[in-house]
Amino acid sequence: MTNTINLMLAGPRGKMGSEALKLVERTDHFQLVACLDRKHDGMNINDIDGLPNLDAPIYTDANQAFDEVNADVLIDLTNPEVGYEHTRLALLHRVRPVVGTSGFTTEQLNEIKRLSEDYQTGVVIAPNFAMGAVLMMRFSQMAAKYFPNVEIIEKHHDQKLDAPSGTAVKTAQMIEEARESQKQGHPEEKETMSGARGADYDGFKIHSVRLPGYVAEQEVTFGQAGQTLKVTHSSTDRYSFMSGVHFAVEQVIEHDEYIYGLENLME
Amino acid sequence: MTNTINLMLAGPRGKMGSEALKLVERTDHFQLVACLDRKHDGMNINDIDGLPNLDAPIYTDANQAFDEVNADVLIDLTNPEVGYEHTRLALLHRVRPVVGTSGFTTEQLNEIKRLSEDYQTGVVIAPNFAMGAVLMMRFSQMAAKYFPNVEIIEKHHDQKLDAPSGTAVKTAQMIEEARESQKQGHPEEKETMSGARGADYDGFKIHSVRLPGYVAEQEVTFGQAGQTLKVTHSSTDRYSFMSGVHFAVEQVIEHDEYIYGLENLME
Amino acid sequence: MTNTINLMLAGPRGKMGSEALKLVERTDHFQLVACLDRKHDGMNINDIDGLPNLDAPIYTDANQAFDEVNADVLIDLTNPEVGYEHTRLALLHRVRPVVGTSGFTTEQLNEIKRLSEDYQTGVVIAPNFAMGAVLMMRFSQMAAKYFPNVEIIEKHHDQKLDAPSGTAVKTAQMIEEARESQKQGHPEEKETMSGARGADYDGFKIHSVRLPGYVAEQEVTFGQAGQTLKVTHSSTDRYSFMSGVHFAVEQVIEHDEYIYGLENLME
Amino acid sequence: MTNTINLMLAGPRGKMGSEALKLVERTDHFQLVACLDRKHDGMNINDIDGLPNLDAPIYTDANQAFDEVNADVLIDLTNPEVGYEHTRLALLHRVRPVVGTSGFTTEQLNEIKRLSEDYQTGVVIAPNFAMGAVLMMRFSQMAAKYFPNVEIIEKHHDQKLDAPSGTAVKTAQMIEEARESQKQGHPEEKETMSGARGADYDGFKIHSVRLPGYVAEQEVTFGQAGQTLKVTHSSTDRYSFMSGVHFAVEQVIEHDEYIYGLENLME
Repeated sequence: MTNTINLMLAGPRGKMGSEALKLVERTDHFQLVACLDRKHDGMNINDIDGLPNLDAPIYTDANQAFDEVNADVLIDLTNPEVGYEHTRLALLHRVRPVVGTSGFTTEQLNEIKRLSEDYQTGVVIAPNFAMGAVLMMRFSQMAAKYFPNVEIIEKHHDQKLDAPSGTAVKTAQMIEEARESQKQGHPEEKETMSGARGADYDGFKIHSVRLPGYVAEQEVTFGQAGQTLKVTHSSTDRYSFMSGVHFAVEQVIEHDEYIYGLENLME
Repeated sequence: MTNTINLMLAGPRGKMGSEALKLVERTDHFQLVACLDRKHDGMNINDIDGLPNLDAPIYTDANQAFDEVNADVLIDLTNPEVGYEHTRLALLHRVRPVVGTSGFTTEQLNEIKRLSEDYQTGVVIAPNFAMGAVLMMRFSQMAAKYFPNVEIIEKHHDQKLDAPSGTAVKTAQMIEEARESQKQGHPEEKETMSGARGADYDGFKIHSVRLPGYVAEQEVTFGQAGQTLKVTHSSTDRYSFMSGVHFAVEQVIEHDEYIYGLENLME
Repeated sequence: MTNTINLMLAGPRGKMGSEALKLVERTDHFQLVACLDRKHDGMNINDIDGLPNLDAPIYTDANQAFDEVNADVLIDLTNPEVGYEHTRLALLHRVRPVVGTSGFTTEQLNEIKRLSEDYQTGVVIAPNFAMGAVLMMRFSQMAAKYFPNVEIIEKHHDQKLDAPSGTAVKTAQMIEEARESQKQGHPEEKETMSGARGADYDGFKIHSVRLPGYVAEQEVTFGQAGQTLKVTHSSTDRYSFMSGVHFAVEQVIEHDEYIYGLENLME
Repeated sequence: MTNTINLMLAGPRGKMGSEALKLVERTDHFQLVACLDRKHDGMNINDIDGLPNLDAPIYTDANQAFDEVNADVLIDLTNPEVGYEHTRLALLHRVRPVVGTSGFTTEQLNEIKRLSEDYQTGVVIAPNFAMGAVLMMRFSQMAAKYFPNVEIIEKHHDQKLDAPSGTAVKTAQMIEEARESQKQGHPEEKETMSGARGADYDGFKIHSVRLPGYVAEQEVTFGQAGQTLKVTHSSTDRYSFMSGVHFAVEQVIEHDEYIYGLENLME
């Protein structure tokens, strides 16, 4: 039998937060005990239009919530400023936080780590909840050690402003750590049209495709004489993040320490 | 029953020419009656080390060859200079030329066309014998009319010097002819790493990947709200050109006119 | 300047119909003049919760609608029974129908064709509005003529009941029409695990993948010595059908005859 | 500076063996000191037509070779029968064997392991030298733990007799070890054409494509709500195995123990 996990959720009306409510609704042993929200203090989730029919009080004062409610895990899907305060309070109350953000400063992360140690309470900080993306990056890093020739192609919808994507840059950094640095391609190769060979990162190339019809996709290809190895991750729906939230909640219960990144929970 | 086709081959020792000899060897109704070569005049193909065991005289003097030998079709796999002379001579002798080159000048092509008309003799000039590549370009042109949002990714081995490839540029030109010109992507998109978005051609993008393990591959992707359509051609072996040579030989027999590009033989 | 097109829509509350309302909302020269619905007679679209804020009267009696409203085009996204009656009535009133169905009988199609001729009124019957899928099938048919070796892989979410998909079967039929029939693979090939080689159709193979995370995807791959050619269509959102509806509306205005399948509107 | 490694090669005239000679030729710190061959005893590699111009004596008697020649590593690319004898002899002479075979019996492997321990001499048995394939299988096993929904598609040339391929079966076994067993797809899914859903292995599916133009390719796709993760390995040339041979030789020098499978040398 799986033990029930009592959850407090911060940010229930956001894009991610409302998906998280659906996750709770679908998961038998997840029990929502309270929500933290900027407004609607004293109301209940099932009073709010457009949210799942879950019975849980809403608090705007996080201190009050932690005092009055007995939670095992805090899921925070707000923003770095508010999320940091929530995370601190949760640890002080020995509630294990699962926080979805890449926005904490090193100083903040150190403080969170210290509190986790002092209160012997597990905490998971996840810059990326898409488990497929986390595995793609990890496999890329592993492969780069044996296949130093690599290129990244990332494909997104054409409303995206920045190129390359944050995931591509993060993947490139992880590859850089693992592979022996080298300048790829023929030493005398030349572009007859500027930009054709993509952006350079530590001697390898990153290409960004922007087309309607794509959501988010990335392929990392490794080449060697006579063979190629490719790792491709494709997202079609925001709900993809929820399997990562689910996983992090299950894991934070089993851990008493500070963990940064889902990859450190995956063997 | 298929009628035997008598073939004269120019360039039997080149990379393409030696593949063409294998094609003749494997094709029952293809009969090699002579070869044109820079050297080995008076010798026979089966005298030359490393070539298939085919019985056909070698000529260095093309005039003499056309005078002495009765051929239906000339396959020319030499170079633009020599090839142009061979093509003219063939037409003057009412032998149908199949010529693999993209190097003829407009003037030369006009002269070949004129000779073809005067002598009512079919001729096929093929810049590309890879039928898959020809279809890829044709499908791309057709799709561009209905899917104006497009990007090209071409992938080659890392010994290739130029980027983008000639096939990518040719495909881009064909797309440009068909689609309504537009600047793709978000108007305010920006590269945080220079070159990430690839080379620009008429408002759409071309990306060139160079990795060991690839031979030659191109994917042309069209996007529209909610869907993508992709055409991919991949070459793994030079022998891929031979199905195009085979096709062109069969077709030139059926035609009395000048034809430029295999695409004009494919309905 | 583009002329305004006055549209009547049948089935505004269905999955496809509600997408069509969004299409009208986004398209400047599309003007909604009435809707046909099973209920809500006498109400207005902007009275109905969850539908776009468009001002158009709702009729349950199609006869009355055609009598009272002046439409250029009827978009019917209902079902074969109702849709057939709507189509007949539209033609009798010289309103051009665009009908999304594969469910009409041959007899019904013949009657529609006859009415179209008698009233010199264009009509488009579209079994598939996804233009990318239509092009994928068309390209597959064209390629099969020159590349008779082919396999189809279709990939759908794991809630789909039937395998292979209707699109795969339709594609297979179109390939069968074009290619020289042959049994592919090695004559002595054997399955050490039953089903590995997929379903057989006229000597070639169809494979069905079912996994969560996919919406709908199909790749048709053609092989020849040394090369492969692949056409891939991927749908990520139901809205993908709307570009086909848009296209059909624009086209039916230009045509006075009966047209079955978008492929016959695409050159 | 890299120390020179003295190599003895068994099977220099085979498909793999002749590639290994090219590898030695291209690698500065690899030194060929002898070859074992069924014939040509007393001759030299550079006497044999079609082999690289390397100066190394040929032995038909392996005992004699190990007595007379001082080698660091034996590369055996023969067959299980002969290879087993070579491996034993090598260990008895404290020469480290790198053996490319999946054909040893459990008894033979145990004996090799025992000899390796007794003589404190490293040995690498590699059923597969394609490092990309080894990584593909490893990544598949890792992913299966978090993405239990998976299907395998393998694609080979149409002269292959068996389906599915040995690599696909091996991958399936590795996935089975890692994932929680489950029957995938909709419980009521049905094939309207027999075989469409592929071969079943522990509740997941394997599909085998056979087309001219392919050499060897495998894609393993994992699906979860809203996302897919795919690992693809593609071989275009037999030379792809040589990077694995190279790697194994470098590694066996660093190890004193018995190692089965390159995956155990890759972190």
